[in-house]
Amino acid sequence: MKDLAIGIDIGGTNTQFGAVDRGGNIIATDKVATQTHADIQLYFKDLYEGISNLLKETGLECKIIGVGVGAPNGNYYEGTVEDAPNLRWKGIINFVDEFKKLWNVPTVLTNDANAAAIGEMMYGGAKGMKNFIEVTLGTGLGSGFVVNGEVMYGNDGFAGELGHTIVNPYGRQCGCGRKGCLETYASATGIKRTVYKFLADNLKPSELRGVSFDNLSAKMITEAAERGDQIAMDSFEYTGKVLGQKLADAVAVTSPEAIFLFGGLAHSGDFIFKPTHKYMEENMLSIYRNKVKLLPSELQNKNAAVLGASALVWKELDKISETKIKF
Amino acid sequence: MKDLAIGIDIGGTNTQFGAVDRGGNIIATDKVATQTHADIQLYFKDLYEGISNLLKETGLECKIIGVGVGAPNGNYYEGTVEDAPNLRWKGIINFVDEFKKLWNVPTVLTNDANAAAIGEMMYGGAKGMKNFIEVTLGTGLGSGFVVNGEVMYGNDGFAGELGHTIVNPYGRQCGCGRKGCLETYASATGIKRTVYKFLADNLKPSELRGVSFDNLSAKMITEAAERGDQIAMDSFEYTGKVLGQKLADAVAVTSPEAIFLFGGLAHSGDFIFKPTHKYMEENMLSIYRNKVKLLPSELQNKNAAVLGASALVWKELDKISETKIKF
Repeated sequence: MKDLAIGIDIGGTNTQFGAVDRGGNIIATDKVATQTHADIQLYFKDLYEGISNLLKETGLECKIIGVGVGAPNGNYYEGTVEDAPNLRWKGIINFVDEFKKLWNVPTVLTNDANAAAIGEMMYGGAKGMKNFIEVTLGTGLGSGFVVNGEVMYGNDGFAGELGHTIVNPYGRQCGCGRKGCLETYASATGIKRTVYKFLADNLKPSELRGVSFDNLSAKMITEAAERGDQIAMDSFEYTGKVLGQKLADAVAVTSPEAIFLFGGLAHSGDFIFKPTHKYMEENMLSIYRNKVKLLPSELQNKNAAVLGASALVWKELDKISETKIKF
Repeated sequence: MKDLAIGIDIGGTNTQFGAVDRGGNIIATDKVATQTHADIQLYFKDLYEGISNLLKETGLECKIIGVGVGAPNGNYYEGTVEDAPNLRWKGIINFVDEFKKLWNVPTVLTNDANAAAIGEMMYGGAKGMKNFIEVTLGTGLGSGFVVNGEVMYGNDGFAGELGHTIVNPYGRQCGCGRKGCLETYASATGIKRTVYKFLADNLKPSELRGVSFDNLSAKMITEAAERGDQIAMDSFEYTGKVLGQKLADAVAVTSPEAIFLFGGLAHSGDFIFKPTHKYMEENMLSIYRNKVKLLPSELQNKNAAVLGASALVWKELDKISETKIKF
């Protein structure tokens, strides 16, 4: 009988889930809508049934050793999702307790970037690393810090909000209610805002002048840059500058071996890596210079978030003491 | 026979040392000059003899269980002091190896702020805390981050350089060769620079107009503020603003239970604590707001650095595995 972990990734639109073995092989995946249910209990029911059906369909003789959940504003200590700006759920949702009412298997939750960090450590480029940072560049900017081989959760389970460190206190409005957070510059949404700023500030011709803000995507900006579009290239340079400066600060605090970039914007390759690396090194204190690797995540596929969430289960079960997994 | 640890604190002018018991009682202390020796070997010899004499003078029957060293730019993994800007020693000095040639007892070294953090954890206000930040406000700004009950050393032993995160890339020149580092604003030297900026920028009367930069001290600025001097009070407000903003960033990364302020400027009481706390809260992401304590160090005496360095020895000996102490 095969041991499997269930990984659940709660996104703004869909909740992806999958069954994953110890080696990181994803046996099967499916999804349910995250926020179309009138009652959150119906969401939990749908999710549970979705997973049950998935397991039936695989036809595998398997033992589910636990459920790992990656969620925006996920609190590892409490098993809760708290005031997630990109979810419609209000207040504090105790995901782990609610889910265990339906299916009483060991369940553990963390935020999505921490889950990606654990996935990177178990199955990706951070194998064997004890100190690294995982930066997810999606709609926002998430981060997971691994210190001495363990995810840093901090006092209340919310450590690792690099996306909400301040670039400029008079800067861009952020979804968190403040101004100038890093994620308003360095994320898929951030680079869109930068494109629009540059389109407003100067008269350079650009194919992006024909695209509305709502229709603009990081992928389109990358493709424009590949065709030599100056506004697109300037926008990557600016994004890399801001991100590189703040990564240098993160290095000064945590001194990692490597920083991994994950998610949509990380697929832009050299357009994002080159300026980020350049400005990170330029802003680095001498003792760290030319030591810290800036690398693309090796979990670059659409199931990476599910893989990361499932990795959390194995990671917790490997801990001998003080485990936060709920049995 | 009493077990004692030796704590050594390497400062720019003097190297303080003392014999300390497990309870944190300092039995005796003395000092040698740090940088007047023509040859660094003579410094090590002086230091060793100073400690030997100190132990003889106490007349105690004691067993020295180890030597702990706090040093600027001290590298815990290597036992080295590397390119310390405030020391005249050039390059990389392997303090632990050199010292052990003279006296072969277990010896371990870290940077001075990490030593203070360990002292805070063992004998100060951080007893029982697993996640906190120790910020030392002296000539520069040092910091030690405790994560999951352990000092965060990072990949290369140099984690915790909060003083060299960037406030403004076009800002004040820093001793590290870059511009706008936090310590150029928030430190005893930083507030002096702020006083001089405010004296230059406006015409407010101030008793500090009669003091040269070289003669100005943080203590004099505090005393002027106590007498209602507007320039002095403005300078504290500005220092607290910059420090508070960057502490909010540090909270977003590490989510500590508390932040302790230690050293010269921390003695200025409400003048520094009030604005720092106000701006830290103002700049905090909502999930951290009103949760993180900003506290004065409870190691506020002149031997705190020696106490912290000695605490490092007990801390290392308490570790069952992976100790970096050299036997």
